[in-house]
Amino acid sequence: MRTPPPTLEWCGDSRTGYLRLLDQTRLPVAEVFLECRTTQDVWEAIKRLSVRGAPAIGVTAAYGVVIGLQPFGNHLLAEIDRIAEYLASSRPTAVNLFWALDRMQRTAREHSDLDCPNLSRRLLEEAQAIEREDREMCEAIGAQGAKLLKNGDGVLTHCNAGGLATAGDGTALSVFFAAANAGKSLHVFADETRPLLQGARLTSWELQQRGIPVTVICDSMAGWVMREGKIQAVVTGADRIAANGDAANKIGTYSVALLAKAHGIPFYIAAPSSTFDFSLDSGDQIPIEQRPRDEISNGFGKQTVPEGVAVYNPAFDVTPAELISGLITERGVISPVTAESIRETLQPVLSGR
Amino acid sequence: MRTPPPTLEWCGDSRTGYLRLLDQTRLPVAEVFLECRTTQDVWEAIKRLSVRGAPAIGVTAAYGVVIGLQPFGNHLLAEIDRIAEYLASSRPTAVNLFWALDRMQRTAREHSDLDCPNLSRRLLEEAQAIEREDREMCEAIGAQGAKLLKNGDGVLTHCNAGGLATAGDGTALSVFFAAANAGKSLHVFADETRPLLQGARLTSWELQQRGIPVTVICDSMAGWVMREGKIQAVVTGADRIAANGDAANKIGTYSVALLAKAHGIPFYIAAPSSTFDFSLDSGDQIPIEQRPRDEISNGFGKQTVPEGVAVYNPAFDVTPAELISGLITERGVISPVTAESIRETLQPVLSGR
Repeated sequence: MRTPPPTLEWCGDSRTGYLRLLDQTRLPVAEVFLECRTTQDVWEAIKRLSVRGAPAIGVTAAYGVVIGLQPFGNHLLAEIDRIAEYLASSRPTAVNLFWALDRMQRTAREHSDLDCPNLSRRLLEEAQAIEREDREMCEAIGAQGAKLLKNGDGVLTHCNAGGLATAGDGTALSVFFAAANAGKSLHVFADETRPLLQGARLTSWELQQRGIPVTVICDSMAGWVMREGKIQAVVTGADRIAANGDAANKIGTYSVALLAKAHGIPFYIAAPSSTFDFSLDSGDQIPIEQRPRDEISNGFGKQTVPEGVAVYNPAFDVTPAELISGLITERGVISPVTAESIRETLQPVLSGR
Repeated sequence: MRTPPPTLEWCGDSRTGYLRLLDQTRLPVAEVFLECRTTQDVWEAIKRLSVRGAPAIGVTAAYGVVIGLQPFGNHLLAEIDRIAEYLASSRPTAVNLFWALDRMQRTAREHSDLDCPNLSRRLLEEAQAIEREDREMCEAIGAQGAKLLKNGDGVLTHCNAGGLATAGDGTALSVFFAAANAGKSLHVFADETRPLLQGARLTSWELQQRGIPVTVICDSMAGWVMREGKIQAVVTGADRIAANGDAANKIGTYSVALLAKAHGIPFYIAAPSSTFDFSLDSGDQIPIEQRPRDEISNGFGKQTVPEGVAVYNPAFDVTPAELISGLITERGVISPVTAESIRETLQPVLSGR
């Protein structure tokens, strides 16, 4: 077992510092770090998935605001909306991105009386607070979710909702880590998660480092592995959860939820309160990012689809609330999943926004 | 629209001829042909999936018997069982392989009075009859299945059950071709079919050549595409169907069948009578081939799973009869799928065996 390299790390002070990111596109073969010194660096790192996972994108964008303001000696307030708008255009589905940018803009407005060096410092503190709170939420989610798993369980996860997707230990994977720390023996099955293979490349890498047994399967095998009796629970992360509990997550999550239901296996989503979007009544309103054809047709450096054949590549799907056995949040497990139960559990957070 | 290259082709006479195979591992990027001149050539071509698809494997194995006997000047009957046993060890799941080998052995025994050149000639005729009958079955399956599809339908298929999987135009794809020939406009969604991407590489290649609109999706997208209302029917092939209708097919088929059921979409399997195994009461008894780790972990020349992480790679799964809306055979569509309805429809074939 080894300490994994940090997913993201702020280096230096607010006026000259930069964000150091582990380039997740290179894992598991190489551990390469990117130094983001401009908003464009940050935008591109998010866009090409060098950093990914809803909470990690949120934290990254917050630091991106600090970086974006560095060239400006004054009138920071006039610049911040432009910078936030630009960073918000990197990816459309994960709401944590917009949530973190909103929070940075609000902080700037609340401190419009500060001079430039002090406002810049204050904004770095806010980004660091977002990072620290994300870490704490991960830990709380792990503690809440671990209770749902039994010793000896086989558990399935899709995509990567681990330390690489957050500032802390992850959401879904945090549940597994906490259960393992509590002495429960688990066997994790990781969907490889086409097209970008976050499950094969990232989830298995994290679990291996933690010494938790993991088996990679193709996405198409999930149903069969359930039928073989190998899975007792499914836990995934989420990129945006509507007020009624409908949850957008990596494409394929909806299928996994349906397959779990068909086999009577509980399906959980683990996510911090920053992933909830109360402005949307239902998942129908969540925008779904469409990604480039070549992620599927040339995903591994080899052409796998004939020239001229159409490819459909939605990056996310929406799992309706009725397929979700429980939402594992830092404030407790919400079950059954309804607009009312969500509102009740997250009320203290909501009133703080 | 162009005439696709032949999937398999016998060249020459029974004593000096060889089998020419289109190497499907190289598609869609290159059209490369293999000349199989020994049983080992044939065995390896089947093993590494240069030729694949239950009916095509059966035809290939029949020719493999002819090739295997070529070095022997007499006592062919003594050699044929050894050759058949060797070829049978290439892949365990598709029953057409064993069916075709049985038929070649039976033919040899029935003509044990012939001298070597004549027996060899007779066995080539039998292999050619198997090929011709497979072609005819494909055509009949297409005609039977086309009636099930409506103009404007979106249809989903998994893996490749086309001309590349048979001696003729395919099983599932033959249904699409026949419907298109009857003037019905279809849009086919092809699951890419990890790990070996037969859908992305082969199915889309065949449909493109026939001028039928096709969109490749990742396997994980099938459920979402159904939810979006894009799919009105699912048709796949099969590798072995038990007496009760349980059907083994490419891994992922079972999940697709469950997803179709959840969306109220009919799920059909198209297969010739040679794919039925009446010696097995149910699908539980069908042996499932386990394939090597590196098909998943290094499938495209790039490492996608960390060293030391376990991978599970079953090549097939079994879809229970109750999830199958109909079995499209050359003798008609069997629906509902029960041991009785199957026996009734295929009785004439059974009594001929």
